[in-house]
Amino acid sequence: MNRGLFITFEGGEGSGKSTLIEALANTLISKGRSVVTTREPGGIPIAEKIREVILDRSHTSMDARTEALLYAAARRQHLVEKVIPAIEAGSIVLCDRFIDSSLAYQGYARGLGMDEVWAINLFAIQERMPDLTLFLDLEPSAGLARIAKAAEREVNRLDLEKLEFHERVRTGYEMLLERHPNRIERINADQTRDKVFSQVLSIIEARLAGIA
Amino acid sequence: MNRGLFITFEGGEGSGKSTLIEALANTLISKGRSVVTTREPGGIPIAEKIREVILDRSHTSMDARTEALLYAAARRQHLVEKVIPAIEAGSIVLCDRFIDSSLAYQGYARGLGMDEVWAINLFAIQERMPDLTLFLDLEPSAGLARIAKAAEREVNRLDLEKLEFHERVRTGYEMLLERHPNRIERINADQTRDKVFSQVLSIIEARLAGIA
Repeated sequence: MNRGLFITFEGGEGSGKSTLIEALANTLISKGRSVVTTREPGGIPIAEKIREVILDRSHTSMDARTEALLYAAARRQHLVEKVIPAIEAGSIVLCDRFIDSSLAYQGYARGLGMDEVWAINLFAIQERMPDLTLFLDLEPSAGLARIAKAAEREVNRLDLEKLEFHERVRTGYEMLLERHPNRIERINADQTRDKVFSQVLSIIEARLAGIA
Repeated sequence: MNRGLFITFEGGEGSGKSTLIEALANTLISKGRSVVTTREPGGIPIAEKIREVILDRSHTSMDARTEALLYAAARRQHLVEKVIPAIEAGSIVLCDRFIDSSLAYQGYARGLGMDEVWAINLFAIQERMPDLTLFLDLEPSAGLARIAKAAEREVNRLDLEKLEFHERVRTGYEMLLERHPNRIERINADQTRDKVFSQVLSIIEARLAGIA
């Protein structure tokens, strides 16, 4: 019986995480692996309710720390209800965003502090860090251009205003890469889908060979 | 102009916090002070929403850490939206339960660990600890008897099952008292309401005289 593996995917907007995860799942399943794809809040009712509170547009006054605590709460519930049972059942869990998103977006880009956001997330996930994290790295301007193209429009002023924020997110991810060189693998996402896919697949297969 | 003061009230079930807070507010207002009485979630819409998630009875599977993070999130929002503005406007804020409740109930009595629950609450409140905390101390069995009497019934088996938990809560509060001897004042709540009231009032007045 295969041991489970917990793999998370990180990166900015337009970096191609969801398409990649779908392709990886199909391939791994065709090779006889049990695969669970998920993303927070992952359809867990409690976590969905928490997400509703976060996204409620009438909550314009929500404090950034309140929001970070709510994300950590939703992460906890998703982890214990869905991710951990799947890993323990021997599945490969492919999760779109996890703790590093909070660290890069809220901790660094929004300025709450990486160490502080780390503290509440450590409470949420305890020792259950991902076995492997794939960081799909792409120039933020290229990511925004991809999103605009997918929406069949030009890059607009709002995109450009957001650009500085996404540059900070990328810097945050770079800092995380330095802190966790064994866990996080940087993937150049400015390549064809096929190239990104085959690079990532071989990394995952190497990990599976190592632990199978 | 008076500087504001942030006073929290702690203690087990039936220790008489809410009655005491009401009496204190009336007296302090009659002496010309501006007073805000509150309790988490304190009618703050975001915090009420979070509370609904916590109390939803369909959420039987809610993990204890998810719950602790949600309480910390609600606390944060209540603090920044209601408590801090009131203190900054010069009011005396009388708050029914605050961080010590999480530490005693979830950190100690439920076994999540005081230091760990402290970490997420420190993120939530930052440096905004109460200026003064009044711990209404009462034998848990006496508190349960008071609640049963108020509900016009006998102490039942369920009460007794809960007794061990409430003994742990009290031990938690005792540990906090040792850790924060300057902030927390222990009040013997096994006295008449009038005696408790006048003891607490003189403590608050001494603090007000010191900072006015």
